[in-house]
Amino acid sequence: MIFTADIIAAAIGGTVEGRGDVTVSDFAKIEEARPGTITFLANPKYEHYLYSTDASIVLVRSDLELTAPVSATLIRVNDPYSALAQLMSVAAQTLRPNPTGIETPSYIAEDAQVGEGCYVGAFAYIGHGAKIGNNVKIYPQAYIGDGVTVGDDTVIYPGVKIYYGCKIGARCMIHAGCVIGSDGFGFAPDAQGVYHKIEQLGIVEIDDDVELGANTTIDRSTMGRTHIARGVKLDNLIQVAHNVEIGHDTVMASQTGIAGSTKIGANCVVAGQVGFAGHITVGDRVTVGAQSGIPKSVAAGSRIMGTPALPAGEFARLAAAQKHLAEALRRIDALEKKLNENK
Amino acid sequence: MIFTADIIAAAIGGTVEGRGDVTVSDFAKIEEARPGTITFLANPKYEHYLYSTDASIVLVRSDLELTAPVSATLIRVNDPYSALAQLMSVAAQTLRPNPTGIETPSYIAEDAQVGEGCYVGAFAYIGHGAKIGNNVKIYPQAYIGDGVTVGDDTVIYPGVKIYYGCKIGARCMIHAGCVIGSDGFGFAPDAQGVYHKIEQLGIVEIDDDVELGANTTIDRSTMGRTHIARGVKLDNLIQVAHNVEIGHDTVMASQTGIAGSTKIGANCVVAGQVGFAGHITVGDRVTVGAQSGIPKSVAAGSRIMGTPALPAGEFARLAAAQKHLAEALRRIDALEKKLNENK
Amino acid sequence: MIFTADIIAAAIGGTVEGRGDVTVSDFAKIEEARPGTITFLANPKYEHYLYSTDASIVLVRSDLELTAPVSATLIRVNDPYSALAQLMSVAAQTLRPNPTGIETPSYIAEDAQVGEGCYVGAFAYIGHGAKIGNNVKIYPQAYIGDGVTVGDDTVIYPGVKIYYGCKIGARCMIHAGCVIGSDGFGFAPDAQGVYHKIEQLGIVEIDDDVELGANTTIDRSTMGRTHIARGVKLDNLIQVAHNVEIGHDTVMASQTGIAGSTKIGANCVVAGQVGFAGHITVGDRVTVGAQSGIPKSVAAGSRIMGTPALPAGEFARLAAAQKHLAEALRRIDALEKKLNENK
Repeated sequence: MIFTADIIAAAIGGTVEGRGDVTVSDFAKIEEARPGTITFLANPKYEHYLYSTDASIVLVRSDLELTAPVSATLIRVNDPYSALAQLMSVAAQTLRPNPTGIETPSYIAEDAQVGEGCYVGAFAYIGHGAKIGNNVKIYPQAYIGDGVTVGDDTVIYPGVKIYYGCKIGARCMIHAGCVIGSDGFGFAPDAQGVYHKIEQLGIVEIDDDVELGANTTIDRSTMGRTHIARGVKLDNLIQVAHNVEIGHDTVMASQTGIAGSTKIGANCVVAGQVGFAGHITVGDRVTVGAQSGIPKSVAAGSRIMGTPALPAGEFARLAAAQKHLAEALRRIDALEKKLNENK
Repeated sequence: MIFTADIIAAAIGGTVEGRGDVTVSDFAKIEEARPGTITFLANPKYEHYLYSTDASIVLVRSDLELTAPVSATLIRVNDPYSALAQLMSVAAQTLRPNPTGIETPSYIAEDAQVGEGCYVGAFAYIGHGAKIGNNVKIYPQAYIGDGVTVGDDTVIYPGVKIYYGCKIGARCMIHAGCVIGSDGFGFAPDAQGVYHKIEQLGIVEIDDDVELGANTTIDRSTMGRTHIARGVKLDNLIQVAHNVEIGHDTVMASQTGIAGSTKIGANCVVAGQVGFAGHITVGDRVTVGAQSGIPKSVAAGSRIMGTPALPAGEFARLAAAQKHLAEALRRIDALEKKLNENK
Repeated sequence: MIFTADIIAAAIGGTVEGRGDVTVSDFAKIEEARPGTITFLANPKYEHYLYSTDASIVLVRSDLELTAPVSATLIRVNDPYSALAQLMSVAAQTLRPNPTGIETPSYIAEDAQVGEGCYVGAFAYIGHGAKIGNNVKIYPQAYIGDGVTVGDDTVIYPGVKIYYGCKIGARCMIHAGCVIGSDGFGFAPDAQGVYHKIEQLGIVEIDDDVELGANTTIDRSTMGRTHIARGVKLDNLIQVAHNVEIGHDTVMASQTGIAGSTKIGANCVVAGQVGFAGHITVGDRVTVGAQSGIPKSVAAGSRIMGTPALPAGEFARLAAAQKHLAEALRRIDALEKKLNENK
């Protein structure tokens, strides 16, 4: 696949600045791009690379003001990252493997239903009464438990494990090693301190267009369901405990954990290694900084960070003040000394 | 299965308040319960749901004082959560899948022993000289290495990996993706800064009645054993490094990590995302708050939290004091100014 | 295998102190060693065990000054841990399982290449066009995607998943459940807050002599590569995001996470549960304390810790000062009161 700048600009609604007939056949990062590649500039931190890159085409913001000459052809667009996404999405159709058919040996229970156009990789397991939609890809060594349902066009990567009874929507992408529907962590101690298991009899329900990262774990609920709403994107190694609910279009970065029965709103943006306490409610459109600890419920629209989490402004003031703490102690010493002398 | 409130109360030793002949056939969370379900109230935060729930039966504490009328039948018990656990445990016998027999293809080494009444799922692997007790369930795609022993009635979920020589007790439950016996993280740098592997020749030994969460990892010891004692419950995505010992009936929430050679006592309660330094000793009955960092040994019975961890009371005081820090700096400025003026 | 102290000392270049003809046949930890075992003393915290151990031989530092009589034979060496590593490395040849050959059923695509002397375990999957070097071990239920290359003598443990196109060097060891090449976490929100996937079309490239821990995840890059250089050692449950680069001979402990596009230098030592922000550069020979959060780029040779991370000395002073914070507030109260009285 070889494209000119003019053709690309027409496809994504951009404006060409420079030679429109220059051609590209691959993508590259701006700092390591070779001739014949297209790249993009979204983060201003990387602007200096624009003036030295060997890329043939660079996608830039419409309003970018150049501060030096550029040898590459520019295509100006409103949102370079989003425009790049469009182009890569087209390219992905040919670059990604697209396996189809049923490989052997695989295990499909007699009463399981598998729709049309599916891929079932070798050593994949589909249990009793499972219902797999159309054009679903189930990679090798994945496990689909009894009675699980999977919507159309969902991709289940190698080694994903989905326990019995869970429901997965359409157009989801579930990465390798992800575990869905393992038992929630529920035990009741007796008088001797010995813990007895609380059976976890609910399910996990995942709506459409959800992407789950590698080795992320989502526990089934004690009763009812653990629920991940439409369009949620979870990164790798995230823990979602039993009975948690995550609202639509919320995104969370790697290694974040959510304790039991907590409700996270819609359109939240959560950075990595964050911990949410159990039994709290986080409103819609909340933004949480990395490594924060959230012990209490949070109002919609809040921007918080730190442990325990504070509004972002307060957190910044606290961090700034802490730098002066050791000095403050010395100043108090001096004040006390002075006052005693003054007596 | 349909039961009346009278029958349930008799089974769990509770007292009926309201109609004893009301029937239920399923469990539900109090806030989403429909007629025909039984629910419970343990956390006082949820008490307001008691007065509006559609559940037919609610398990409540013996000493709960009602503040409004309740339409559901109540069953009063000492510990509602524990009573619910009893009921769910009975129900689980019929609700959970109960696979048996040897599915094909699976791989069982010629000299491996598999006891009576076991389930070995398709694509499961049982290595040379492994000894599997009676009524063990080994789900699809699980790996049992050479010489591993597994006690009676243990359940090993899909994709669990147990390296050679490790020992698993009876009545354990090991969730999907859990890795037991991978090499401890041991390397010695040479003068050039190149790391050379320290072979990890010990094992992991897990006693009876242990439950391990999804994708949790427990490394084999350098020599001797990494040891998880009877009744320990570990949540998902926990890291247990080489040579660690965890005492009986200790519970740990998700994403906690324990560095090498640390000894954790019995009956400890550890929240999520906690980190323990290596080569320390934590006494019995220690309680650790979420996201704490434990750099030093901890006396038995301590309640600690924070990074570095402090006694819970000190931590609360520090957190409270920090809110006044920026203001304190301004007060010091004012004092200094005043004192200079007074001169 | 039975060896005398004299033979062992000769092999590792040490000096015998005590009986040279004492024999050992196994390794043990110093605190639980029985007669007939060899152990070592590296960490001074454990020196007291030296005077009571039942081990027959103890490896100790050349310059260790004894403070009491020792019954074991000592072998003095420059670096006891490193000397032990040598001995264990020899012992490992006979103690570790050494599977070879192709077990059935396994899946090897027709156009895949598998070198000489390899092990391919049952239920392992090797995709189209994959190239596996010589003497590689691929354990059961591992997944090697289309076009993946694996260098000579690499060991891939059960259930490892390597997505299409990734490159693995020689003499690597990849532990169970590790995922390599899953999609980087890249999404662009539209005006309605709905996230659209940025296709991740790059690869992961892992150089020679790398060891990766159990359930660690390394995402493929958006374009170009995510790169792990020669000799890097990553512990369990670590997250490496898309486009990250880690320099040679850097080691990282469990549960650490590195956000997208960050560059980590060579010869760094990173403790557990650390978080690196995205798009930053960490220089060579940086040491990072446990649970630190690194929001900004870090100069070569720095020793940092805390969240946000400070130079180690500043962090220690801040931690010390914090202990006096509540008291400082009371002292300010007293000063203000006194000053008002003095008026």
